[in-house]
Amino acid sequence: MADKSTEAETELRPGELAVALPQQTDDGVYFIGTIHTPWRSRAECPKRGSFDGPICSIVVDERWRMALTDLAGHRRLQVLYWMHRARRDLVLQTPFQTGKTTSTFALRSPVRPNPIASSIVKLVAIDGTVLQVRGLDCLEGTPLIDLKPDRATAGE
Amino acid sequence: MADKSTEAETELRPGELAVALPQQTDDGVYFIGTIHTPWRSRAECPKRGSFDGPICSIVVDERWRMALTDLAGHRRLQVLYWMHRARRDLVLQTPFQTGKTTSTFALRSPVRPNPIASSIVKLVAIDGTVLQVRGLDCLEGTPLIDLKPDRATAGE
Repeated sequence: MADKSTEAETELRPGELAVALPQQTDDGVYFIGTIHTPWRSRAECPKRGSFDGPICSIVVDERWRMALTDLAGHRRLQVLYWMHRARRDLVLQTPFQTGKTTSTFALRSPVRPNPIASSIVKLVAIDGTVLQVRGLDCLEGTPLIDLKPDRATAGE
Repeated sequence: MADKSTEAETELRPGELAVALPQQTDDGVYFIGTIHTPWRSRAECPKRGSFDGPICSIVVDERWRMALTDLAGHRRLQVLYWMHRARRDLVLQTPFQTGKTTSTFALRSPVRPNPIASSIVKLVAIDGTVLQVRGLDCLEGTPLIDLKPDRATAGE
């Protein structure tokens, strides 16, 4: 926690505004697996994942193996992951790419009170607890928190 | 925690399978507001929200007021919320509506390791920290955890 606190007090860009975070969180998340991608830094990550992008793998923890058994029939999945390197206390932020100060909930930036990202991916293959997918844009080693059938194709 | 543990050990439907949850969570979520809907029980909730459905309100905590300031220009938002009444330990579940046993990640059910739901809503109005939206299907009093521009219309 010391690291996060230090980070939260430094490196504000022009126009950015931080608030004091609540003293405690309200509930807890389990990391249920790990996402493997070719990207080792945010600068390398594509701004938005593409179904034509590289195959990435999602390795789900053994504990949840049985929760995957009916996934193979789904062509598109919604992946929720935890952007573990992002600070959580900015209400106004100035993205490096645009330089335009914007309020946090009007951006899909990783920097937000709960650093949860939602991506739609194409399921290429699944073998036991390992999924091969296209469409991600996150860092190597990102913690997985959920998999769901895509809303748009859930009925297929 | 005692309540959750008790809940997790009871009321399995035919075909359902529970696993032991990890002893601790890996990170924490902040509840950043409260969602108000007409539905007081899961039986009353629509199975899927509709843009023709009733207007619901999202009341964001005062702490995050400034994070909302640029939202008015967005017609569609992605809302993430925490389904606080759902158990988290089922890997196979048998939804009441279908009676068909299915693995957890192949369902969009509230019952999952991290009970996070993602809905796309139409933004009807915003006044300070209160949003009026259409398209939700969750219980009255559901904790809000994030708001983002909809991926599909984020560039508009």
